[in-house]
Amino acid sequence: MQHDSPDCGPILRRIRSQAPFVYGLTNYVAATLSANVLLAAGAAPAIGAAPGWPAAFGAHAGGLWVNAAGLINATAHDMLAAIDAANASEVPWVLDPVAMGAGVAEYDDIIRRMAARRPAVIRGNASEIMALAGGAATARGVETTASIAQAVPLGQVLAHRLGAIVAISGPEDHVLSPDGAQVIISGGHAWLTTVTGAGCALGGLIAAGLAVTPTPGERLTAVAAVHALYARAAEKAAGPARGPGSFATGFVDALAQLQGLAHD
Amino acid sequence: MQHDSPDCGPILRRIRSQAPFVYGLTNYVAATLSANVLLAAGAAPAIGAAPGWPAAFGAHAGGLWVNAAGLINATAHDMLAAIDAANASEVPWVLDPVAMGAGVAEYDDIIRRMAARRPAVIRGNASEIMALAGGAATARGVETTASIAQAVPLGQVLAHRLGAIVAISGPEDHVLSPDGAQVIISGGHAWLTTVTGAGCALGGLIAAGLAVTPTPGERLTAVAAVHALYARAAEKAAGPARGPGSFATGFVDALAQLQGLAHD
Amino acid sequence: MQHDSPDCGPILRRIRSQAPFVYGLTNYVAATLSANVLLAAGAAPAIGAAPGWPAAFGAHAGGLWVNAAGLINATAHDMLAAIDAANASEVPWVLDPVAMGAGVAEYDDIIRRMAARRPAVIRGNASEIMALAGGAATARGVETTASIAQAVPLGQVLAHRLGAIVAISGPEDHVLSPDGAQVIISGGHAWLTTVTGAGCALGGLIAAGLAVTPTPGERLTAVAAVHALYARAAEKAAGPARGPGSFATGFVDALAQLQGLAHD
Repeated sequence: MQHDSPDCGPILRRIRSQAPFVYGLTNYVAATLSANVLLAAGAAPAIGAAPGWPAAFGAHAGGLWVNAAGLINATAHDMLAAIDAANASEVPWVLDPVAMGAGVAEYDDIIRRMAARRPAVIRGNASEIMALAGGAATARGVETTASIAQAVPLGQVLAHRLGAIVAISGPEDHVLSPDGAQVIISGGHAWLTTVTGAGCALGGLIAAGLAVTPTPGERLTAVAAVHALYARAAEKAAGPARGPGSFATGFVDALAQLQGLAHD
Repeated sequence: MQHDSPDCGPILRRIRSQAPFVYGLTNYVAATLSANVLLAAGAAPAIGAAPGWPAAFGAHAGGLWVNAAGLINATAHDMLAAIDAANASEVPWVLDPVAMGAGVAEYDDIIRRMAARRPAVIRGNASEIMALAGGAATARGVETTASIAQAVPLGQVLAHRLGAIVAISGPEDHVLSPDGAQVIISGGHAWLTTVTGAGCALGGLIAAGLAVTPTPGERLTAVAAVHALYARAAEKAAGPARGPGSFATGFVDALAQLQGLAHD
Repeated sequence: MQHDSPDCGPILRRIRSQAPFVYGLTNYVAATLSANVLLAAGAAPAIGAAPGWPAAFGAHAGGLWVNAAGLINATAHDMLAAIDAANASEVPWVLDPVAMGAGVAEYDDIIRRMAARRPAVIRGNASEIMALAGGAATARGVETTASIAQAVPLGQVLAHRLGAIVAISGPEDHVLSPDGAQVIISGGHAWLTTVTGAGCALGGLIAAGLAVTPTPGERLTAVAAVHALYARAAEKAAGPARGPGSFATGFVDALAQLQGLAHD
């Protein structure tokens, strides 16, 4: 177990120098922030299921992220098409099971069908990870009602069962590998939970991290490094912020500053 | 009639302490700001019509807001399902008849079907309220072309006919009850009309206010208090703002500051 | 050929005094910024394909913009209905062929069907214009992989063939008329490419410019002036910005300042 924040320098430099094309199926509440986070980090995002995009962009992207709440503006069919195209081309993809366990059986079933399709990474809050693992936790809409401590054991079961990295966001983020390894990322700032889409955008940035990490064995480190980057940007942004509005603006600025794309 | 701004302290404290789950069906232009406004005020929003959400979240939320322009990204069927679920569970809901009266008969008919389903509150600009009341006013797209003075008499007729509180936004906001009572909220700032979705987000915040106001007889005061909160946050934000961009950011900050969730 | 930035004063004053109603079918990633850009410039935007809107708003708007990536949240049928309504009422419209040439044949075909319907202006990046003109350029998602120098000759062919003004965004923007005239707009700032939707919002502002330019022979000047306005606002915003987040906020502020709607 590793309690120190991992070094986010190497992954930052790879994202900036490779500018990976990252494709996302996400919800319209989070889409703009997600695109701006990826652009600030140096990646090249495209979002949405225009005709023909899921199959084509799923196959040609460096990484894909699928945010279940994207079902508010895309069909399950389109999402599964993007996932299948990514898998056929060995494009790593991230599943974000937003609002899993909030009491909507039809919706949860779609997420389970996605999860059965070999995501490289599953990221979510404690309630979502517990619900996907089959635990009894229930969410309230998109908010977690469970704690990280409750979620980690079930997250480890889920990682092992699906052969995926499981990343749980909370006061401390826990990134779990299928073989039982774990990295804990401290820091960050509570205001991340008051900016809509901040968690969703992290899913996109993880897909960018996967896109520049060709060796599957290095994914645990890559995902942990992206979480550490998020935490560091949040800390930079929180200092001068006067509330969640200026924090969100400053968070995007901080990602670009950390990337060397902007000056402090 | 009451010309002073109502005290927004009590409703602020209730929203913050109860953190109500508020469900919204709104349009993608306004969705992100709406979610951020609700989070800054201390509520827990979920937005959009993913499979199964309208019936489940409509029933389980503390309050629901339905923004007619949400028809750009949800079906009338989904909106009516959420409304019916809310009504069946006695969840109070807010109708925002965006662009009513702009000359689109098919669209206006859907709004009339919603309005016939017992909303607790109807909020809109002068043109929209006049059009829904059956007056001759016409809007231009989503912009009002009528004045508050023209709209108030028709708004009172509408409130009485539907048994709903009617809130009309303008240079002064007028909140009208079915029994003829009226509260006028002064203040605010003209820049609210230059930030897309600011009116739509107010609908969400009113739903949060209803969620923490169990007694129907206290709803007039609650809706007026939410309008006063909006006006006060706008005034706080306008001082240091250099235009509508920084005003929007500062407005979200100001809501959090008024909630005690951020420092000035 | 004209290398100096055109004067954006006259078009600014006309937009502000006439506040044209501008209707847009665009994507949810760019919609909020697009609406805020138009509001900051003094126009009155409505966005999206609610039932009945495409035919009604297409006919009644002063200008229409159709962003092909809007196909992530509207049908081709709705987009073509808005275009046909605009044409029937002689409302000028702007086509933005986002992601044209990125390797999705089905999607590109829809854009070609739009382009065959007499747009007044086509605006895009170098890859998109080359692909629409029939060149071999390929994009990578929504990012250009071609240079302006490669795109201008094909853009001139496209302008002549379709009888449309073709505006190509890049380090220098080139605005081309069907009769071979050209205006080059220098300036602007590279951060425009790191703010999602900034190019898409420019399409909306061009539609506002067309709405206040009744004489077709003055459209080249009007489109160039809108590009110059964009460049000037970007330069104003870049100075105090600390990254793409504060740049985007400052860009909206700067448009309002240039319009006299806000103080510097």
